[in-house]
Amino acid sequence: MPDRDLQYLAELAAQLRVDSVRAAAEAGSGHPTSSMSAADLMAVLFACHLRYDFEHPEHPANDHVIFSKGHASPLLYSLYKAAGVISDEELLSFRRRGSRLEGHPTPRLPWVDVATGSLGQGLPVGVGVAMAGRLERLPYRVWVLCGDSELAEGSIWEAAEHAGSEGLANLTAIVDVNRLGQRGPTRHGWDTGAYARRFGAFGWHTIEIDGHDPGQIDFALGDARNTRRRPTVILAKTRKGEGVLEVENREGAHGKALKDPDKAVQELGGPRSVRVEVQRPEVDATPFRFASNGMKLPSYQVGEQVATRTAYGAALAALGSARGDVVALDGEVADSTKTETFAKEHPERFFEMYIAEQQLVAAAVGLQVRGWKPYAATFAAFLTRAHDFIRMAGVSGADIRLVGSHAGVAIGEDGPSQMGLEDLAMMRTVHGSTVLYPCDANQTAALIAEMADLEGVSYLRTTRGDTPVIYPPGERFTVGGSRVLRHTPGDRATIVAAGVTVHEALAAADDLQADGIPVGVIDLYSIKPVDTAVLAEAATTTGNLITVEDHRAEGGLGDAVLDAVSELGPRVVKLAVTDLPGSATPREQLADARIDRHAIADAVKRLL
Amino acid sequence: MPDRDLQYLAELAAQLRVDSVRAAAEAGSGHPTSSMSAADLMAVLFACHLRYDFEHPEHPANDHVIFSKGHASPLLYSLYKAAGVISDEELLSFRRRGSRLEGHPTPRLPWVDVATGSLGQGLPVGVGVAMAGRLERLPYRVWVLCGDSELAEGSIWEAAEHAGSEGLANLTAIVDVNRLGQRGPTRHGWDTGAYARRFGAFGWHTIEIDGHDPGQIDFALGDARNTRRRPTVILAKTRKGEGVLEVENREGAHGKALKDPDKAVQELGGPRSVRVEVQRPEVDATPFRFASNGMKLPSYQVGEQVATRTAYGAALAALGSARGDVVALDGEVADSTKTETFAKEHPERFFEMYIAEQQLVAAAVGLQVRGWKPYAATFAAFLTRAHDFIRMAGVSGADIRLVGSHAGVAIGEDGPSQMGLEDLAMMRTVHGSTVLYPCDANQTAALIAEMADLEGVSYLRTTRGDTPVIYPPGERFTVGGSRVLRHTPGDRATIVAAGVTVHEALAAADDLQADGIPVGVIDLYSIKPVDTAVLAEAATTTGNLITVEDHRAEGGLGDAVLDAVSELGPRVVKLAVTDLPGSATPREQLADARIDRHAIADAVKRLL
Repeated sequence: MPDRDLQYLAELAAQLRVDSVRAAAEAGSGHPTSSMSAADLMAVLFACHLRYDFEHPEHPANDHVIFSKGHASPLLYSLYKAAGVISDEELLSFRRRGSRLEGHPTPRLPWVDVATGSLGQGLPVGVGVAMAGRLERLPYRVWVLCGDSELAEGSIWEAAEHAGSEGLANLTAIVDVNRLGQRGPTRHGWDTGAYARRFGAFGWHTIEIDGHDPGQIDFALGDARNTRRRPTVILAKTRKGEGVLEVENREGAHGKALKDPDKAVQELGGPRSVRVEVQRPEVDATPFRFASNGMKLPSYQVGEQVATRTAYGAALAALGSARGDVVALDGEVADSTKTETFAKEHPERFFEMYIAEQQLVAAAVGLQVRGWKPYAATFAAFLTRAHDFIRMAGVSGADIRLVGSHAGVAIGEDGPSQMGLEDLAMMRTVHGSTVLYPCDANQTAALIAEMADLEGVSYLRTTRGDTPVIYPPGERFTVGGSRVLRHTPGDRATIVAAGVTVHEALAAADDLQADGIPVGVIDLYSIKPVDTAVLAEAATTTGNLITVEDHRAEGGLGDAVLDAVSELGPRVVKLAVTDLPGSATPREQLADARIDRHAIADAVKRLL
Repeated sequence: MPDRDLQYLAELAAQLRVDSVRAAAEAGSGHPTSSMSAADLMAVLFACHLRYDFEHPEHPANDHVIFSKGHASPLLYSLYKAAGVISDEELLSFRRRGSRLEGHPTPRLPWVDVATGSLGQGLPVGVGVAMAGRLERLPYRVWVLCGDSELAEGSIWEAAEHAGSEGLANLTAIVDVNRLGQRGPTRHGWDTGAYARRFGAFGWHTIEIDGHDPGQIDFALGDARNTRRRPTVILAKTRKGEGVLEVENREGAHGKALKDPDKAVQELGGPRSVRVEVQRPEVDATPFRFASNGMKLPSYQVGEQVATRTAYGAALAALGSARGDVVALDGEVADSTKTETFAKEHPERFFEMYIAEQQLVAAAVGLQVRGWKPYAATFAAFLTRAHDFIRMAGVSGADIRLVGSHAGVAIGEDGPSQMGLEDLAMMRTVHGSTVLYPCDANQTAALIAEMADLEGVSYLRTTRGDTPVIYPPGERFTVGGSRVLRHTPGDRATIVAAGVTVHEALAAADDLQADGIPVGVIDLYSIKPVDTAVLAEAATTTGNLITVEDHRAEGGLGDAVLDAVSELGPRVVKLAVTDLPGSATPREQLADARIDRHAIADAVKRLL
C-alpha cells in the first residue's frame, strides 16, 4: 500500500476517533473508548473493501456491515458522517430524544440491518444474512464487527459452528481484541491465539493482526475476500481508547464520555473533514427467488382427528409452493414439529440449524434482512432458549415467524422439561408481536398462510396430539379475530379457550347444558392482538368469564382476556397450569392441571 | 483388566440395555435406543470409578452424575435398579402418573441433582457443581453424560470455556457419540476428532475411544480421574440402539419403544439379575464454609438519593459477612449491577462468569446443589438469555437468587436493547418463583436478606438511577407483602406501583390531592406472591385501581393485580410501556412511556 494511502487511512481513522469522542462528549455518555479501538479496522474496511451504495441501502448487491458490538455506535455514526450520509449536526444529536442516532444502533437508520446492543447477537444474525446471500446467489459480503468480550457468549459458538460447517465464505468476523471488557480484563486478554485456536477448531480461516496497522488490516480484509469455502475471522489486537493517553488501555474507562474531550480531540490532531468514498457494488444483480405457483392449502374434513402440528407442516409446504420467498428453519426436531413436510418438498430452502435455538432465530432474522419470509420451528419450550434473540428481533422490527410445537401439559408422558408452558407469556411481551394458537387443522393452515405477510415477530403454537377438526376447509381467520362457537341469549357464563382447551370447553358446555346451565364458548385463537370487541360483549352480557389455557397462569390467554375486559368489571375465573406436572397420559395431565372438561364445568358451577 | 471383570461389565451393560428396553416397552414410549448407546459407558463408570453412597445421597463426598442427555432416563433408572435402590416393579412404572421415574429425570429422585431434558444444560450445571467442589474443598468428581447432538448448543461452549479456563479437573464430560440425532445424522457423525479439536481448543484434556469397549472406557475414566489442572472430555464412538438389530445404528428409531421388545430382550441375552456395587466415598469430609459473623445490613436515611442497585451490592456484601454460605456470580457487569461491592469484600467467593448468562445461571444452579446460596446478577434484559435455564431451575426446584439491574425505560439513553422490559413477565411464569421489585434502598437491603432463605427461583429487580429513600432503616418487608403508602377513607382510586413508579405515584397523588382528588398509593414490592388481601381491600373500597409499571403491559405488575382482584370486579387501568423506546433522558423516557406522575394523574382523572 502506498504511503499516500496509509496517510489517508490514518487521517480517516483519527477523524473517526475525534468524532466518536465529540459525539459522546455532547451526549455526556456512550462508548468512545470501544469505538476508538476499532477505528482503524473500520477505516480500512470502508475505504478499501466495502461495497455499498449509501444512496440505495436496499441495493441487493450491497455488502452488509453489522456492529455486533453495538455499543461502538459512535464509531458507526462517525463512519456515516465520513461517508457523507449524516451531517456533523446530526452526529452531535447522538443519544438525544428523537434522534436516529440511538445509544445502540437500530434499523431506524436505513443502513442498519438489525438492532444490536445485546452482545453475541450480531455474528449469528450475520450468519443468517450470509445464508441469504448464498440462497439468492448474490456476491455480497457480510462484515461483522465483534468485541472480544462477547466471544464468551455461547451464541457466538453456535454461529461459529454453523458458518464453519456450512463454509460461509461470504462471512467475515472482525474481532476488536482490545483486552478490556466492561468491568475489567477479558478472560484471554490479548491472547489472539486463544481465539484463533477456537475459531480454527470450528473450521474458520483465522488471521491474527495488529489492529492499528492499516497495512495489516488491508491485507487481512483482502485475504478474507479471497478465501473460498470457509468463513474468516480477523483477530485484531487493539488498544481500547487508542490515541488518547487519559483512557488508552486503561481500566475504568468503559462506557463513559471522556473527562476532557477537548484535550483528547487535540491529542488526536484536532477535527478534520476527511471523506470516505465507499465503492459501490460492481454488479446490479437480481436476487434469486424460487418459483411461485398457485396456493393450495391442505384441507381437512370436519370431524377428522389431526394434530395442528401436522397441519402446520402441510400448510407450510403448500405455502412454499405458492410463494418463492418462504423458507423454513429447524432446530433438529423437524420430525416432531412437522417442518419435515416442508423439508421434503422444498429441500433447497429448508435449513437444518441443529440444536441451537439462538442461531435458529438469528438465522431467521438474518434471512428476513434480505426479504425472505422465514418460518422457524422447534418445541415451544425450547424457544425460551432464544428469548433474548426474539426480544431483539422485536426491537429490530424483524419480520420473522416462529412456530412452537408440543405446547402444554397435553404432550403427556415426556414431562415438564418438554412442555411449552411459558411461551405465550414470553411471546406476548415482545414488542410488536402477534401470538396465535389454533385449535384445529384448517384453522392452523389458514393462520400459517396469514403469517406470511405479517410485520414483526409472529408466533403460532401447535399441539402434539390429534384434535378434532371443527372448522370447514377454506374458512378465513384473521389476526385479531375470534370465533364464538356457542352462544345463546340465556348464557350464564362464557368460556374463553384456545388450542387444546377449545375442545375441553365445548365438552364442558355440553355437560353444563345437560345440567341446565347454558354457557357460551369463544375460540380465542388470536391471543395478541386480542378480539376486545367480542370479549367485551361476553363480559357485559353474561358478566362471567372462565378462561382456560394449557399454559401457566401468568402472562397467557387468561391475562390477555383480563387485560381486554378489565375496565368493564366482569367476574373472571382463570383456569391454567399452576402445579409442576410429572409424567402422565395427556388426558391425565389435563385432569391433573384442572383444565379439562370436568374442571371447566366445576369452575362454572362454582362461579354461578 | 482381567477377563472376569470384562465379562461382568458386559453382563451389567447387557442388563442395562434389557431394562431400558423393558421400561420403555412397558411405558409405550421413551428413549431406549439413546440409552443403549451409553450403557457400556455407564456400566464401567458405576462399577469401577464412581464414588457414591446410595444410602446417603446427601453425603458431601459423593460424586455427582448428571445425565445432560436426560432423555436417556431409562438407562439412569436401570442403573438405579442395578444399584439396588429401586425395584424392578418401580422400574416398570416408568412414565406412569405418580411414578418418580419421569420421562426425563427430576430431583423427585433423591439421587438426581437437577432436572434435565432441555439439552445442553447438564454440562453447564455440572460446571457449577465442580465449582462448588473446589470452593468447599471436597474431593468429589462430577461426571456428566452428554449426547453428541447437544454439543450444538452454545451453552455447551460457555461451559467448555469456563471449565477449561478455570481448569476444573474434577469435571468429566462423557460424550455418547452415537452419530444420530432426533431427526437424522448429527453434523459431525462419528468424527470424534471434530469434537476433540473443539474441546481441545477450549483447554480440555480430550480422549477418543470406542464407547462399547469396557477396557478403553475404564482406561479413559481412570485417565480423567488422574488428570490435573484440566477438565476431561471422553468422546466415545457408539452405536445408537447397540445390541438390537432392529434399531442398531438406524435412523427413525429415536424416542420410541421398540416394536418387538421381547425379541430384543432375547437378542440381548435375556433378563439378568446383575448387581453393581458402587464404591462409597473414601473420606467423610466436612464441606468448607466461610465464617459467619453478625448481620449488619446497610442502612440509609429517609430522603437520601440512592439507587436500589447500590443498596443491593452493599446488602449482599453484608449478607456475605453474616452468612458463610452466600456466594455471588456476575455476568461481567458487576460495576453496573453493583455486585462489585460483594466482590471487593469477598473475592474468594465471587465468581466472574463473563458475558455468558446461560452459564451464569447454570453455575448458580450447580452451586445450590451443594447447599450454597448463590446470588447471580446481570442486566434484567440479559437474563432473558438464560430463560430456558431459569425455567429448568424451576422444574428442578433449585434455590437460586437472581438480580436484574437496569430495569425499564428509566435507564435512559442506552435505548431498548439494554432495558429490562420483559423480565417480570418471564420470572412470574417460572414454576415456584418469587418476584420482588423494591423502590428504595432500605427495602432493597431487607429483601436481599429475605431472599437467602427462600426456596425455588427468586428474583429481585433493581433500578439504575437514584431514587429517594422513603422507608426508615430496619423496617421489615416480607415476601408476599405490600405497603399502603397513602390512604384516606375518601380515596376515589388507588394507584398500585412498584420500584421507580412508586415515586411517580406518590407525586401524582400529591398533584391529585391538590386538585381535590384524594387517592391511595400501594407499594406492591412483592409481585409474586402478591398481597391479595390488600389489593382486594383497595378494589372493594375505592373500586378503581390504576396500576403503573416500568415494564411491558403484558405479564407484569398490572397483570398480577388483575389476576388478584379479577373475581371482585373493580375497574382497573393499566399503565405500562407499550411503544418501542429510543434514546432519551430517564425523565423523558418515563414521560414518553406515559408512566410518569403526569400520566398517572391523567389516567386517574380519565377513570373517574
